[in-house]
Amino acid sequence: MREVYLDNYAATPPLPEAREAMLPFLGDSYGNASSLHSRGDAAREAVEEAREKVAALIGANAEEIIFTSNGTEANNLAVKGITAGSRRKGKHVVLSAVEHFSVLHAARSLEKQGYELTLVPVDEYGVIDLDELASAIDEDTVLVSIMTANGEVGTIQPITEAARIAAEKEVPFHTDAVAAAGSVPLDVGQLGVSALSLSSDLIYGTQGAGALWLKRGVRLIPMLDGGVQEGGRRGGTENVAGIVGMGKAAELAAENMAARSAHLGGLRDAMIAGLPDKVEHLYLTGHPTQRLPWNASFAVEFIEGEGMLLFLDQQGVAVSSGSACTSRALKGSHVLSACGIPAERAQGSILFSFGLQNTRDDVDYVLEVFPPIVERLRQMSPLYAKFLKERG
Amino acid sequence: MREVYLDNYAATPPLPEAREAMLPFLGDSYGNASSLHSRGDAAREAVEEAREKVAALIGANAEEIIFTSNGTEANNLAVKGITAGSRRKGKHVVLSAVEHFSVLHAARSLEKQGYELTLVPVDEYGVIDLDELASAIDEDTVLVSIMTANGEVGTIQPITEAARIAAEKEVPFHTDAVAAAGSVPLDVGQLGVSALSLSSDLIYGTQGAGALWLKRGVRLIPMLDGGVQEGGRRGGTENVAGIVGMGKAAELAAENMAARSAHLGGLRDAMIAGLPDKVEHLYLTGHPTQRLPWNASFAVEFIEGEGMLLFLDQQGVAVSSGSACTSRALKGSHVLSACGIPAERAQGSILFSFGLQNTRDDVDYVLEVFPPIVERLRQMSPLYAKFLKERG
Repeated sequence: MREVYLDNYAATPPLPEAREAMLPFLGDSYGNASSLHSRGDAAREAVEEAREKVAALIGANAEEIIFTSNGTEANNLAVKGITAGSRRKGKHVVLSAVEHFSVLHAARSLEKQGYELTLVPVDEYGVIDLDELASAIDEDTVLVSIMTANGEVGTIQPITEAARIAAEKEVPFHTDAVAAAGSVPLDVGQLGVSALSLSSDLIYGTQGAGALWLKRGVRLIPMLDGGVQEGGRRGGTENVAGIVGMGKAAELAAENMAARSAHLGGLRDAMIAGLPDKVEHLYLTGHPTQRLPWNASFAVEFIEGEGMLLFLDQQGVAVSSGSACTSRALKGSHVLSACGIPAERAQGSILFSFGLQNTRDDVDYVLEVFPPIVERLRQMSPLYAKFLKERG
Repeated sequence: MREVYLDNYAATPPLPEAREAMLPFLGDSYGNASSLHSRGDAAREAVEEAREKVAALIGANAEEIIFTSNGTEANNLAVKGITAGSRRKGKHVVLSAVEHFSVLHAARSLEKQGYELTLVPVDEYGVIDLDELASAIDEDTVLVSIMTANGEVGTIQPITEAARIAAEKEVPFHTDAVAAAGSVPLDVGQLGVSALSLSSDLIYGTQGAGALWLKRGVRLIPMLDGGVQEGGRRGGTENVAGIVGMGKAAELAAENMAARSAHLGGLRDAMIAGLPDKVEHLYLTGHPTQRLPWNASFAVEFIEGEGMLLFLDQQGVAVSSGSACTSRALKGSHVLSACGIPAERAQGSILFSFGLQNTRDDVDYVLEVFPPIVERLRQMSPLYAKFLKERG
């Protein structure tokens, strides 16, 4: 059966070059980057070379990169570490209403410790309200965290403008760039941010490596205490192979950014252009133009995401959905809710997330197999029956 | 040049079987263990199979295993997570004076949050004082953490007895088994502990994976908030390949425990028996018999660890030292200090940590090249000159 992987937002397939770069460190080049002998030197040099490459992807200085185990750890470290570093200054945090759970839930855990949390609302396209952001920041605010782009609906946020607002009030600004990195050019200087999160498994490296870029001078209390790895900001033996893979992936992303964006954007646009003609009651979610090149997200009315996932899986197509049944947390998507999409429509959410390996044929295959699936599910749907009856 | 790697406490070489098991998940079998399609199922099943294997190594239930990114994270999660889970009960933590930095520094960070910390002293061999442990626990104590064995000096602690003392007072007992696992049989039920830390890179898996076993019923507040991975106890996409490698490594460790211990213990004993005849003013550190099979640690008087490391490295021998100059923290070993070893002797500490790949020839090679190195360093040593002069 044809296999069409369109769940690249869950994990991008590791590039062969990244895997090849890693292999020695899973074999004969094993070693601890903290060891003071030739084998340790080799591991340390490999980590430092990767640090340069990851820094180069976002226009940063290498010594400002803290390697973590994934994007979630980078986001937790930013939210918890920066707030802990300015505990005496204040206890108020500002986020967008559409942050990833690793930012949102990290901030919720701070609430339990007495912090106050303000969520900046978004419009129907998922774009934050800059006026609301400006008025949310007060003298007690110690961190603003707004994602660069939302992976679930694809919307790219006005980060430069948002960061400027925070900078004027001298509040550190973190951006979760996990979904954006690799297909959207990022330069921390131009963005004007203080911290930025990345994950290797969304830039075609492997799982097990992520990074937090932290601007020099921003105070941070580590989460992992132990040795003095990562400049004393993250204790614990480094995942040398995973970091090397991330470095290689970052290097390739920087080199091929324009071509990648064009390729991915072409697939996205073909899907967004083709699907509405074939599926009734289909709505694009997220922003129509300010969106990630790889993201084609929709809400399909009268049916449930889980059914679409399962039937598509039977046809070899892997996708994801923000519906409650398909989320292990068993809650509907807070992102779709924040965009004002009613729960019954959000239940039919579906995300086609494209990767470098995808082709136009993959889009055509989905355009062929997906409409009959929707049709079949609708025939079983009491909601659709009700709709038809009411329409008469 | 001959390469003799005797720094297995810094990182064990990944076993080919562990690496082979990982490779598919770095390649065609990429996928996110949380995804609801065939590719996600495969990743999830691989993680759950690894969880069974890691649990089996320590006689635990699979659902009580929380995968982390390394031993340091497992230790931090135990210390911070368990104390946070019983914040209302009390704010006192009891550790041994010889804990790994990932336990000790995690507890130090709690001190900054108002916790009280008691360090149970050890004797000259590094063994904890059980009476002192008993009297250290009070009504405010919410966690006792005593390592199973100390990797730096090899001493195995009386964990069963220590855990019983904590259990009688109904205080959760965590043990850092990172150094012990794989060469010392461990059964969490027999030990009577509440939590136990492991690291893949010390059981011949790869860097980037660790685990905390947490007994059902022990309350824990997660450090990484985000998704509901790891039963809601550690958010973030799992490092599937790293976890699979750890599972394979754990399976092999369980199967070959006796043979491994015999092999490693033979090398250790040969080194401990052979070196004193060839090097004057050499002292075994740690316990003479209750020690890890792979650990041969010494203090060499009148010289500095750094010189030994560098000269041994030139001869192809990789080792480590607890001396201040060889530690990136630039402090002398707190373990040797707790054993009452004076600073000037501790400066000459050296650890030969054996691995499965080592042979008796490796020991013989060290017995041949190490004594002239000591001799050469002593000739340059003002302390040794002073000693000779005083001796007359």
